[in-house]
Amino acid sequence: MRTRFQQGLDELKERLLEMGGMAEAAIELAADSYRKRDGRLAQQVFEREKMINQSERAIDEMAVDLLAMQQPMATDLRFVLAVLKINSDLERVGDLAVNIAQRSLDLALEPEVEIPVDIARMTTAVSTMVRRALESFLSAKSEVAQAVLEMDNIVDRMKDEAFINLVAQMRANPDKVRSYLDVLLITRSLERIADHATNIAEDVIFWVSGADVRHNVRFSQEPDADAPRGH
Amino acid sequence: MRTRFQQGLDELKERLLEMGGMAEAAIELAADSYRKRDGRLAQQVFEREKMINQSERAIDEMAVDLLAMQQPMATDLRFVLAVLKINSDLERVGDLAVNIAQRSLDLALEPEVEIPVDIARMTTAVSTMVRRALESFLSAKSEVAQAVLEMDNIVDRMKDEAFINLVAQMRANPDKVRSYLDVLLITRSLERIADHATNIAEDVIFWVSGADVRHNVRFSQEPDADAPRGH
Repeated sequence: MRTRFQQGLDELKERLLEMGGMAEAAIELAADSYRKRDGRLAQQVFEREKMINQSERAIDEMAVDLLAMQQPMATDLRFVLAVLKINSDLERVGDLAVNIAQRSLDLALEPEVEIPVDIARMTTAVSTMVRRALESFLSAKSEVAQAVLEMDNIVDRMKDEAFINLVAQMRANPDKVRSYLDVLLITRSLERIADHATNIAEDVIFWVSGADVRHNVRFSQEPDADAPRGH
Repeated sequence: MRTRFQQGLDELKERLLEMGGMAEAAIELAADSYRKRDGRLAQQVFEREKMINQSERAIDEMAVDLLAMQQPMATDLRFVLAVLKINSDLERVGDLAVNIAQRSLDLALEPEVEIPVDIARMTTAVSTMVRRALESFLSAKSEVAQAVLEMDNIVDRMKDEAFINLVAQMRANPDKVRSYLDVLLITRSLERIADHATNIAEDVIFWVSGADVRHNVRFSQEPDADAPRGH
């Protein structure tokens, strides 16, 4: 029989995955607002972000109440703490989608320029990272989480390549500097979303490996040298 | 008589304030590496960031162990959760100090340019926010935390002003675009540090107002009489 506490944990997981879906949708909408230079889509990102913020607060309260209600066992405790961290990362993803939408609005006001960066490809990579990170959470599979960490290097390289190409374009077309800056800041926001996906993957590893490694919890002043949370 | 659990809470607080000191020092070093275009100072920021990461892991483990050891009362629970969040924000401050140091190294390789942004003034504002946020944590004073939230607007305005001035300079001096971009990214990193100070202040308000609202809690709004040494 499932206890009320276990039901609470299940509901928490479901709510967090819902929030993950909202964050993914915000990234897609922001990318569309860029691609189509469409202000209405940008507006939808702003509305979505408000919902994400509400959801963050609700999940935070739910997690705190669960911790207060009962002393969770080691793995459950790590699970709830991972939820709190992932929740905060997803909320930041919403903020970054807003940044992208704002830059897209700005870009729509500037003269048309040729963009030397494949934003669509970068968005796909970043969205995939977020989706996989959430999948690793759903399935509690640290190998899926590990794959997310490895993808981060690809996005970093895209960001660095974009920087070089955009600087070259700014030098050649100083009257269009502002448009290129908008694109540069969009690549930075995308890269930061990838960082949050990485954080989520790390939190899943922390939760899952905690479950593997720690069969019973003890209090120690010095934490393990091989603490599960890497950077 | 103080219980082992209460001693644990005190030690956690002390360790977090130590980490706050490291993060503050990293910001100062990064700002100096910019001002003096000094690669050795940038190197020190990179080393400091490694220490900050180690400290983050240690504090995280300590907080998790405290939660696992005993079911904390409402305020204690909120305190430990606030510590976990603040810990993560301080770690990100270390990352951003590294970003600033990297941009300063890049800047030192480029030809000298006149910078139309008062980075020193912006750094002072941002450092003050971080220090005040940590003070609000030490003293458990939500009015100090509130003042931090209000300072964030000032830093945002500085960032927007910097953007406009730097775009103008890039247009006028396309051959120096890269240097101006370095400075632009430094202002973005500083603004993000201010965001983390804001997060910390919000976490303090969450912790303290939890204590205000719940009268049946043993742990009063005032922190322990033997509060840890500050900075």
